[in-house]
Amino acid sequence: MAAHWIAVDWGTSNLRAWSMGDGEILDHAESPKGMGKLKPEEFEAALVELVTPWLGARTLVLACGMVGARQGWLEAKYRSVPCTPTDPAGLTLVPTHDPRLDVRIAPGLSQDKPADVMRGEETQLAGALALHPNFDGVFCLPGTHSKWVQVSAGEVVSFQTYMTGELFALLSTQSVLRHSLTAEGWDDAAFDEGLSEALSRPDRIAARLFSLRAEGLLHGLTAPQARSRLSGLLIGIELAGAKPYWLGQEVKLIGAEALAASYARALGAQGLKTDRLDATACTLAGLSALYAKLNA
Amino acid sequence: MAAHWIAVDWGTSNLRAWSMGDGEILDHAESPKGMGKLKPEEFEAALVELVTPWLGARTLVLACGMVGARQGWLEAKYRSVPCTPTDPAGLTLVPTHDPRLDVRIAPGLSQDKPADVMRGEETQLAGALALHPNFDGVFCLPGTHSKWVQVSAGEVVSFQTYMTGELFALLSTQSVLRHSLTAEGWDDAAFDEGLSEALSRPDRIAARLFSLRAEGLLHGLTAPQARSRLSGLLIGIELAGAKPYWLGQEVKLIGAEALAASYARALGAQGLKTDRLDATACTLAGLSALYAKLNA
Repeated sequence: MAAHWIAVDWGTSNLRAWSMGDGEILDHAESPKGMGKLKPEEFEAALVELVTPWLGARTLVLACGMVGARQGWLEAKYRSVPCTPTDPAGLTLVPTHDPRLDVRIAPGLSQDKPADVMRGEETQLAGALALHPNFDGVFCLPGTHSKWVQVSAGEVVSFQTYMTGELFALLSTQSVLRHSLTAEGWDDAAFDEGLSEALSRPDRIAARLFSLRAEGLLHGLTAPQARSRLSGLLIGIELAGAKPYWLGQEVKLIGAEALAASYARALGAQGLKTDRLDATACTLAGLSALYAKLNA
Repeated sequence: MAAHWIAVDWGTSNLRAWSMGDGEILDHAESPKGMGKLKPEEFEAALVELVTPWLGARTLVLACGMVGARQGWLEAKYRSVPCTPTDPAGLTLVPTHDPRLDVRIAPGLSQDKPADVMRGEETQLAGALALHPNFDGVFCLPGTHSKWVQVSAGEVVSFQTYMTGELFALLSTQSVLRHSLTAEGWDDAAFDEGLSEALSRPDRIAARLFSLRAEGLLHGLTAPQARSRLSGLLIGIELAGAKPYWLGQEVKLIGAEALAASYARALGAQGLKTDRLDATACTLAGLSALYAKLNA
């Protein structure tokens, strides 16, 4: 059954696509062919491979995420904040060989000072605002590159990116700390300890990292404890920097469940209320809002 | 010509050996077979391959560094501070198949609280004290895992490790920042800027890292500028944490030339005088002091 249009969330690690009908999802497919694994000339084949069953004579594909990065399929524009999260006028048309494809990539957002960029999160924000119209306040989107975003009157006012997820991945799998950590296991008390250390003494963060190794060697810090404390330290240094965003606010979290739960716990320890939104639901609502505006 | 004994500095990345005579260096050899590339059963062959021309019927090999780590040839002891940097009583004898080898690994140092460990630097410290007897004060040993060390009356009183070099390597070659950096090139002004940012606002370090990427995309920050600013940020967050060590002190730097020069510049900007010692000379003086004590 041919799609009315196709929604695509194309990140660094994965490609996810939805066959969209008249307001409902007809089908879903995904592949590990993320932007990080593809050369520019390989994107079209990766997309066709996944969505062929849904294609009509010519089908609109609305894509968001790192597919539009400089290292992606085709560099899409940035729109400069303050502005609405998405705007169909900013879509970048991608030339394709397959005549059935009409591919357009959603623009990212940029901020002049402090310099910052996002790709993909703007669509989640648009979706969150479509699901919660009139919300004024702060979003936190934890992930590889966590984003803190101030939204007011339907516009993104400012945002700030933290390399928290990427630092966690590099330190826990590539650094000397890998000997002291596990891929699994969790310890809330160790997480809380790391969080509190980083928040109260951010200047000590670089020394606290190596101490995970030393505490394992000398004092029997277990691997799940070390992993949880590392997570606490890194989320803690993020929260230390993002304090102007969250202080005295109610924060809406958009992100993967386990990670969002850690952020909710960390913010809860600062006395904050958090609300969690489903990331995929936000992405789809954002792309759907873009589609609706395009056809309005 | 057979060595009186053999000095070995066996780190994570390299193996370096010196054939020692009666107080003088007879020969030198090195190989890329660092501890990080070897399984426990491969160490002996790597050593024999390098030092065979120097071996007599039975030759003492004094080794320091990561060869004695838990992931190394054989785990060597830690001696707990406060204590002298090295002590022949702490040497770990390594069983070998080749009867010409009498291999002993220098003990590392450990600190109970805050938990910390070192392997290899203790030998450089012993050498620095052999070269500068009666020195009381602070050593900084920049590197993959930078060490700050308080020495008094010939003993290591306390020390603190920072993962600065490893963070720089991971961020500049494995993270999203790799797209914005070069392996070469330097910009003093960008280094100073990163240093000052991290020292004055350590809580913002995690956000400042991603801004290197954003400033490259939006404002044309050049790759050498981004590399230098990253170095400034990471050395800055180290100096922020190590302030109790250096404040009001004269610091002796032991490390590779270019890196030690960056630290000297950074500490100079805080109004400090620094003195630079050659790392290899310190290692050799430390192993020689150990040899002399062993034969005293």
